[in-house]
Amino acid sequence: MEQKHLSSYQPSHGGNVEWAAAIAGCMPSEILDFSASINPLGMPASVRQVLQSPHILAQIHHYPDPNYTRLRQAIANYHQISPDWIMPGNGAAELLTWACRDLAVLDLVRLPVPAFADYLRALRAASANFEKIPLEIGNEMEDRGGSNRQSNRQSIGILLNNPHNPTGRLYQRHQFIPLLEHYDLVVIDEAFMDFLPPSESQSAIDLVEQHPNLVILRSLTKFYALPGLRIGYALAHPDRLRAWQTWRDPWSVNCLAMEAAIAALADREFQSKTWQWLPTARTYLYKQLERIPSISPMTGAANFLLVRSERPVLPLRDRLLSEHRILIRDCQSFPELGDRYFRLSIRTIEEQEKLLQGITLNAT
Amino acid sequence: MEQKHLSSYQPSHGGNVEWAAAIAGCMPSEILDFSASINPLGMPASVRQVLQSPHILAQIHHYPDPNYTRLRQAIANYHQISPDWIMPGNGAAELLTWACRDLAVLDLVRLPVPAFADYLRALRAASANFEKIPLEIGNEMEDRGGSNRQSNRQSIGILLNNPHNPTGRLYQRHQFIPLLEHYDLVVIDEAFMDFLPPSESQSAIDLVEQHPNLVILRSLTKFYALPGLRIGYALAHPDRLRAWQTWRDPWSVNCLAMEAAIAALADREFQSKTWQWLPTARTYLYKQLERIPSISPMTGAANFLLVRSERPVLPLRDRLLSEHRILIRDCQSFPELGDRYFRLSIRTIEEQEKLLQGITLNAT
Repeated sequence: MEQKHLSSYQPSHGGNVEWAAAIAGCMPSEILDFSASINPLGMPASVRQVLQSPHILAQIHHYPDPNYTRLRQAIANYHQISPDWIMPGNGAAELLTWACRDLAVLDLVRLPVPAFADYLRALRAASANFEKIPLEIGNEMEDRGGSNRQSNRQSIGILLNNPHNPTGRLYQRHQFIPLLEHYDLVVIDEAFMDFLPPSESQSAIDLVEQHPNLVILRSLTKFYALPGLRIGYALAHPDRLRAWQTWRDPWSVNCLAMEAAIAALADREFQSKTWQWLPTARTYLYKQLERIPSISPMTGAANFLLVRSERPVLPLRDRLLSEHRILIRDCQSFPELGDRYFRLSIRTIEEQEKLLQGITLNAT
Repeated sequence: MEQKHLSSYQPSHGGNVEWAAAIAGCMPSEILDFSASINPLGMPASVRQVLQSPHILAQIHHYPDPNYTRLRQAIANYHQISPDWIMPGNGAAELLTWACRDLAVLDLVRLPVPAFADYLRALRAASANFEKIPLEIGNEMEDRGGSNRQSNRQSIGILLNNPHNPTGRLYQRHQFIPLLEHYDLVVIDEAFMDFLPPSESQSAIDLVEQHPNLVILRSLTKFYALPGLRIGYALAHPDRLRAWQTWRDPWSVNCLAMEAAIAALADREFQSKTWQWLPTARTYLYKQLERIPSISPMTGAANFLLVRSERPVLPLRDRLLSEHRILIRDCQSFPELGDRYFRLSIRTIEEQEKLLQGITLNAT
């Protein structure tokens, strides 16, 4: 396939291994995927055991419990919050659609950019009136929360992401408190928060029960390596979640995802193992990338690193794919970043070695 | 539990075995479920094989292909229609939400009643202006299609169900043709059409490519006994489906449901076996019910029968559940039917014997 043609189709999300395999001329399973930020330690053994148990297939014969009672209780236990404040979803991505429908009721929604492309999709789907605001380093949230709110009486919302994708930046929990006073609705996507151990977490979950204008979205996809199963959840006021429930059908979460989630949340061993692995592997990748002259990695708190290149990224992406079967995430779906950034998920040291070799051969 | 209290909570859909098991004091797997109209022959062996294959869990590690290329091709092959006209969904229930959002653009939507409760949920979620019209036996569709359309210039849509739930009535395919001329959008839920062999099918799928104002919803849940996995699809004009795709996230169908669907659609043996089993079992149940003095079954073309009782149904439902662990579908979610109807799915002759014994003991 010609290089130009190869670049002309741009998947707008990471993890499209079917597309990548077609270009690399191999099986999807042969692609070394640095584009989707999935835990490389793989599905927890506890989840594998549940999904392989002899009676699991019998569950498929029944509709899922529309109240998702056991799943909501498992999430409630994990976060020490009442089950009424929890709504499971067909991935956090499904819940984003409903969060944006809720935001769209307001006069204005602020979206810090660069932002995950599906935020724009969901805001547009709900015909939200939104404005992009630049993600500034440091104090953007407090400043904006204050000044703009006083000057007019329109209702405003904000859609945030912590840790932030694709920069990897971690906001401190206390930064959200003034926002909750100034905004009519604050939605925080914490899809990557699980990657921080409890001692470092900046989750705003403990603010939910005191703030009916706070919605938190969580994913089980990335940390527990289950993107194919589709499972996430929202934490918000019960009245809000009851409204969302009328917007969607009653059986949004499949029963295998439900059982997998219950097992995953209880798997403290897998959680600890991930928290031990990640900082070492991330530091290693960061330091090795720093040594490659034409690129500069940025520090990040999640399981990915944003990297700036001196040259446009697409030729590098295409060569890594066709010559090394390695898929990296170009950042074209984040237009504010231009054409010189790419994102790498943190994988095992051995896998990172292959990536570094490929980058060194092609980027310099 | 007191009888009155037991009846006070009404599940609005069939198949809620968790609720039933709590009342019957048993495990959900011990409930003999006549309330959800699921094929009792169970998951096809071909699907079981796919879901138990050693490499299936590796797929969970990746996001589903957002284009669902292989699944759409499998559906396309099955129906002899182009893949562009197909959109898979997280159950037909998910797609109903988007179909109703599309209907809601029109000035008026007609909904023949009694109707599946989720139709009302989805129409209300989209703020549709809808009117219920009584489902008359015989010629309601042609008449309404003509007369009302001429009298004013407002845009109108209609949401139909064939075979109809809960009456079991089968509309003839030719009855839809005049509707397609008179209505701006015709949505036909064919969730139970698979239960008719090809020689008897009245599916309107072959009309889709000639009518951009036709949407057909199909379920794989009921025929292939996969309600816990969540899989269905819509057939409609590619432009319409592209719009729907912007209303939802990119990964609505989980990868196990996708693989199960591909295997199920290719399983001609399972399909034939079901088509052989159903008419015999349905006729048997019908004739046995006819012999019970206080109730009258109605004939039906799908895998369920609607039954009229001389007395209110709830006490019978509750006794069957608490004394026999048998769950029947009361019809309270179909308010037009009043309190004297119940719906029974067709199950194996042996299971039907248990049901008939329970009904005979409690209904007379």
